[in-house]
Order: sequence, then structure tokens, then C-alpha cells
Amino acid sequence: MKIEKLILASGSPRRREILTQIGVNFEVVVSNEEEKPTSTNPQDFPIENASIKALAVSKKLPAEIVLGFDTLVFLDGRPLGKPHSEAEALDMLKSLNGRAHKVITGVAIAHGGQIISAENEETEVVFRNCSLQELENYVNSKDPMDKAGAYGIQTAGARLIKEIRGCYYNVVGLPVARMLQMLGELKVEV
Amino acid sequence: MKIEKLILASGSPRRREILTQIGVNFEVVVSNEEEKPTSTNPQDFPIENASIKALAVSKKLPAEIVLGFDTLVFLDGRPLGKPHSEAEALDMLKSLNGRAHKVITGVAIAHGGQIISAENEETEVVFRNCSLQELENYVNSKDPMDKAGAYGIQTAGARLIKEIRGCYYNVVGLPVARMLQMLGELKVEV
Repeated sequence: MKIEKLILASGSPRRREILTQIGVNFEVVVSNEEEKPTSTNPQDFPIENASIKALAVSKKLPAEIVLGFDTLVFLDGRPLGKPHSEAEALDMLKSLNGRAHKVITGVAIAHGGQIISAENEETEVVFRNCSLQELENYVNSKDPMDKAGAYGIQTAGARLIKEIRGCYYNVVGLPVARMLQMLGELKVEV
Repeated sequence: MKIEKLILASGSPRRREILTQIGVNFEVVVSNEEEKPTSTNPQDFPIENASIKALAVSKKLPAEIVLGFDTLVFLDGRPLGKPHSEAEALDMLKSLNGRAHKVITGVAIAHGGQIISAENEETEVVFRNCSLQELENYVNSKDPMDKAGAYGIQTAGARLIKEIRGCYYNVVGLPVARMLQMLGELKVEV
């Protein structure tokens, strides 16, 4: 069935931009639910956080199709959050420099106050061998400060990235192909 | 050396957007040189076309660092250009559907009326298994009509693409990491 609009349970402007770019009708409804993942494996955090967000909104709007997302950057299995200072941003970028890491986004679809589909999408990202000066210039631009892993592939952070293996939009925060595949299996057209 | 500005020998708005995104100072100067590649191997066309564009501009502005680019989509070694009709766009998309193809961008740097560096960057792009309806919807949006291979990864064409292996910006038309590496080897900072 073709639905009129999705509910995006995320305040991220980047996710809004992606849904707009691919022509999906949607409305943003954000819950104030605190995300407290209980998994012992950090790689389960994205799918768990995405489910918490989608579920909280679905309980208020049970008739709607609600989508939750959560994106984390992993280096050697350890999650990297947003940097708290420019020094921490530089440390994160140095640890990512010249090598590969993983970005995982959890996608959760809720309806009727229940999760009806939830999956992770994983992309490998490879940094160039950047000079310290390049990393410092990027930190000085302040761009890293609101971003998990201290970089944005869709901003000036593009300078740092040599290649990816997987879905590009997953790295930005909303894995388009995975979302469409999950909706397709539920017979939802957007 | 840090240079004040690059010369972009390309009229493509997408290439301008990428250079702006990564904070490079540049000016657009487009030659009216007709591209007539002489290679017998189509995979050499991008580097040859990029060189023709950069060289024509460098001869007029020998003091500047001039960059030329050319992007082609290859399916089983055969180059796909821009579609001439909606029917041709749909045929191209059907041939790309559910499988992998290659995008090659040639990057040429000219200075003093000569090419001083020229390389190809190659990215593999994998289409989802899209329904005919999805492909038709995309063709009806007219988005494919000005794009080699009849899709844009940076537009609603994002719906069609499952994953890539290589540089994302190469698929858009300007391989950022490759360009920075080539400029770095020439000791040019941008």
C-alpha cells in the first residue's frame, strides 16, 4: 500500500534532508525518551536505540508507520561518540587516520505501538593518510564537534575519506536502500 | 605551497558544489575544446577527456593550476552516456538493475600549458533489485535525463543504490581523495 506519510522519530537535520532528497513524504515527531541501551554488545546499541525512539513515538501515534534510526561509529569494536572538546576530536581523527573503521545504523519500524521490523546496516569507511596539519585544519573548522567519530562524510570531512564499502547514506545516518527494502517487505510504498 | 585558487575546467554544477563543500578556493574557466578521445580502450576516455579539458584552459592561463575531470559509467566495459530519451533512460536503468557496474573519473592537472599529473579513479556501484515500477517512477521524475548512466547517486537516484566500493565523490564526478593526493604529490595545498 502507498501511504501518505511516514513519521520520522529523529530530530537529525541530515536524516530530514535524505528523506526529502528521495521524495518521501514525512513528518518529524521526536520523543523525549532517554536512550538507555541494555545490550552488553555495543554493536547492538544502534538497533536498540533506534527501536526505543520508534517505539516511544508509535505508542503516541499507533496508526502511523514510525521510523527510528541510530548511527554509531566503531573503531576496533569500540563505539566513538561525539567529541566533547577539540582536543578529543583531534584524538578521534588521529585514531581513524589511514585505516578502516565501521559505521552502523540501526533502523527500526514501529506500528500500533510495536516494533514490526528492525535491522542494522553496516558500512566500512577508509580514511586517507592525512597529515596532522590536515586533521588540525578540519578540527579548527568546528565541523567535527556535533558528529559521532568527529567527522562528516557529507561536509568538509569528505577530504579525509578515501573510500567506503557499503551504503553511503548509512554513513550520513539514514541507509536508504535498507529502509526501502524493509518497507518493501512490509508492503509499504513511500 | 598554499595556492590562492585552483582553476576548475568544468562547467558541472556538481563539481562546483563538491569543491565548495570541502572549502577549496577556485574559479571556473571552461574551454570550448571539443573532446575527441583517440584511445581504442573506452576505459581510457575519462583520463583523456579530462586532459583535453585541462590542457585547453592551461594554454590560456599558464600560470594557474588547472583541473580537468571527466566521468563515465561502464557496464561490462561498455560506456553509458546520457540518455537521449525517457525510453533509453529506462533501458539503461533496467540494464544496471540488481547488479554492479563501474564509474570512472579521469583527473588531469595542468600547469604551464602542460599536463603535470593525470590519473583515473574507479568506484564500483551496486544497484538494488528495484521493481519496474520504481525504475519507471524515477524516469518520470526526469532526474535521469542529464546524467551518464541515467541516475544520480546524490539525488532521488539514491533509492536505487545498495552499496558502493570506492570513493563516493567519484560517483558524483569529482574524486576528492584522489585529487588531494595528486595535488599533495605536487606540493600544492588547497
